[in-house]
Amino acid sequence: MSVYTSVGEAELAAWLTRYSIGQLKSLKGIAAGITNTNYFVDTTHGRYVLTLFEVLALDELPYYLELMSHLARHGVACPAPIADSTDSYASLLAGKPACLVTCLTGSEVGAPSSAQCQAVGEMLAAMHEAGNTFPKRMDNPRGPAWWSATAAGLYGEMDASDAASLHEEVAFQERYRFAHLPTGVVHADLFRDNVLLDGERVAGFIDFYYACNDVLLYDVAIALNDWARGEDGNIDDDKARALLAGYQSVRPLTGDERAAWPSMLRAAGLRFWVSRLLDFYRPQAGEMTYTKDPKVFQKVVEEHRARSDFWL
Amino acid sequence: MSVYTSVGEAELAAWLTRYSIGQLKSLKGIAAGITNTNYFVDTTHGRYVLTLFEVLALDELPYYLELMSHLARHGVACPAPIADSTDSYASLLAGKPACLVTCLTGSEVGAPSSAQCQAVGEMLAAMHEAGNTFPKRMDNPRGPAWWSATAAGLYGEMDASDAASLHEEVAFQERYRFAHLPTGVVHADLFRDNVLLDGERVAGFIDFYYACNDVLLYDVAIALNDWARGEDGNIDDDKARALLAGYQSVRPLTGDERAAWPSMLRAAGLRFWVSRLLDFYRPQAGEMTYTKDPKVFQKVVEEHRARSDFWL
Repeated sequence: MSVYTSVGEAELAAWLTRYSIGQLKSLKGIAAGITNTNYFVDTTHGRYVLTLFEVLALDELPYYLELMSHLARHGVACPAPIADSTDSYASLLAGKPACLVTCLTGSEVGAPSSAQCQAVGEMLAAMHEAGNTFPKRMDNPRGPAWWSATAAGLYGEMDASDAASLHEEVAFQERYRFAHLPTGVVHADLFRDNVLLDGERVAGFIDFYYACNDVLLYDVAIALNDWARGEDGNIDDDKARALLAGYQSVRPLTGDERAAWPSMLRAAGLRFWVSRLLDFYRPQAGEMTYTKDPKVFQKVVEEHRARSDFWL
Repeated sequence: MSVYTSVGEAELAAWLTRYSIGQLKSLKGIAAGITNTNYFVDTTHGRYVLTLFEVLALDELPYYLELMSHLARHGVACPAPIADSTDSYASLLAGKPACLVTCLTGSEVGAPSSAQCQAVGEMLAAMHEAGNTFPKRMDNPRGPAWWSATAAGLYGEMDASDAASLHEEVAFQERYRFAHLPTGVVHADLFRDNVLLDGERVAGFIDFYYACNDVLLYDVAIALNDWARGEDGNIDDDKARALLAGYQSVRPLTGDERAAWPSMLRAAGLRFWVSRLLDFYRPQAGEMTYTKDPKVFQKVVEEHRARSDFWL
């Protein structure tokens, strides 16, 4: 259960007077979500999702919330933030930065079909296209400099063979530069638990709080490493091809992107291998996250090293 | 049937490449609508409404489309325009200015209940509040100067007693000034056929192409004159009270507004009495409108003259 900050009906009703969304009927905590507190808020106008940010500060939110608004305005399936009477998307509630967004249909799918992978790929490309006109910028805080420095601090505590494998990957990635590839707004965390599906239709991408400006192909690789990965940890060829076909039906990869694709798949795996190692070896005091298994992404990276067919 | 401009699938599919809303699945003409051509457009991402503007020019659209986007962002139930790859809401299609908006649920209700009138009143007040932060402005082209000049050109052709009654009303309104009342964005045409209802919930206000900046109370009076009017042409007391109660649950009327209310109800009736007389006596060549009965609003105005209880 991920309701870290409790909000009462009276407190919420008072806060809602800054909005034009009718009278509060009920609120209900949402169990899903790892980092923030979420509630369903029902008013006389409809259902919304209330998010209280447990880590991000109020002045860090405009990039993410204006991005979601921009993408929604362009027809990308994602929650649309609701603006208040000061035309702001966020303000303090119960001492935390808080926002309201539209409530989407659909649900998470643990074991997606190839058709669902294709739909996700298509929507990701639509998101990349729609991001072209978004004016704000945010650097990726978890790029190569971050993973190299973070890995360097962990080798000494890791099993020797795992450390050698990690070091090999960091050294491999240091020989690559992706700066010549098309860049734009990336979701950067488009795992299965951040997409709502309604049958084979994408009802919405959610949780844009890792979004940033980076190489578009990196986003495709992050998505593929999760969406096409089966229960056994192996990448399923059909799902990988479907996701790429969906993506390329909207935005065909360039020659440079195709050439960079094998190493980008490994870079995308490395990023989550390192962050999971960090969560494992350096758990934050009071951190409200599930520790996820770093081995999953070690296996992804090591299998990509041995792969010869990259589904292009 | 109100499809004045035909659009083919190939032509539409080519135009849709400027959007990030997936691949065209089908399009279907919409019979409702008097002035513009509307289609349902189904894509792999969902259902949208395509409007081709038969009268408004491309450079006249930003006020209306940005207003709808602003209101939707603030949680007011209305269609949200979809932006294209140039971040524009409209461009030419089949030689006409055209836009895509989100498709709402709900349907028109010919004989609304009091609860529905209350919900409409509440949403109208929410719209007025949300309009406070909308930066663009548009004068009302059909204000007192317009109805006085228009009526003056019609008296000679009208039945003498009708002309006398119209003249009496124009003269009455010329003695009133509403400039001291709260102003803002008004829909200015919130009749039953411009609201979609889903049970007792307002699913959406539509057809914002008469919206402008004017006295807020005028919008309340326009809505009441239609929503509370029964089959017999009389205003139903319960529905009138319900609409006002819904409105005032969000934005209580000021003392000045309460004092102006009886004459404002007549002003709102006069505006449609005159426009319907104009359509009747001066039908535009090739105009694609149903001629609506001017007597309906003559009766509304004359009954308001005789009324003593204005439901406040």
